[in-house]
Amino acid sequence: MVSPEQLRRYPFFGGLTAEELAGIAMIAEEVSCPDGAVVFRDGDVAAKLYVLTSGTVDLVYHIERPDAVETSFVGSIAAGEPFGISAFVEPYRLTASAVAHGPIQAIAIDSAGLRGLCELSCHLGYTIMRQIARALAERLGFARVELAACK
Amino acid sequence: MVSPEQLRRYPFFGGLTAEELAGIAMIAEEVSCPDGAVVFRDGDVAAKLYVLTSGTVDLVYHIERPDAVETSFVGSIAAGEPFGISAFVEPYRLTASAVAHGPIQAIAIDSAGLRGLCELSCHLGYTIMRQIARALAERLGFARVELAACK
Repeated sequence: MVSPEQLRRYPFFGGLTAEELAGIAMIAEEVSCPDGAVVFRDGDVAAKLYVLTSGTVDLVYHIERPDAVETSFVGSIAAGEPFGISAFVEPYRLTASAVAHGPIQAIAIDSAGLRGLCELSCHLGYTIMRQIARALAERLGFARVELAACK
Repeated sequence: MVSPEQLRRYPFFGGLTAEELAGIAMIAEEVSCPDGAVVFRDGDVAAKLYVLTSGTVDLVYHIERPDAVETSFVGSIAAGEPFGISAFVEPYRLTASAVAHGPIQAIAIDSAGLRGLCELSCHLGYTIMRQIARALAERLGFARVELAACK
């Protein structure tokens, strides 16, 4: 587990009560990955929701062509931002892979546990879901800029 | 206003209590638009959240080129689906325009009023935000498929 004080440093957890932070801290852990490590793969079940605490993570996804599998860059995650947000969107399957761009550290939260906490406290659920929606909207904005560039 | 029973027909409002539905019904109205009508324009403030009740809506956005403004198709909204979901993502500016593809009918909900209701009832907020996140994730999936096709 991590301490509630560690979580409190990040805007992602802004607006949560001490009790809610304590609940999340119980099901969270710190993870470190070296440069190039694959934190998770697209298509896998989103078992963890991550908040990056240092370094940069590249999100990429795989496009299956008749003759090969291509890798496409989706966007970068900076410190303080969430990733693995498919953990909060049914069917809870990761739509992109996360690759450490340089060494990284992150807080990893058990996603089924966090969804359970959201069901128990709708204040927590509402607060977290707003952050998830904001992150999705940012990814969507990035994808549309990319689309505009390649048309 | 519309009746709570009208809202109850659509999965978007699933899981809400009778009181919550009554609160939304008070700030909702039915709108009808002819084929080709622009329901809202990208860049405008998202004053309403819409749930399409019949017909099809095309979402498009405008790409400013040095010599012209191009229109790019973002996706289609089918009956039962929400649109104008920027009403729930800061800074509450519409990122796409909505154009009626044939005659349409929709339920239009005052977005500031609905955000206010979500603040009062976090159960309502959590339930609606999950629907918003689901819709954003669908749009993102569509954008990524488009990106894969044009790369």
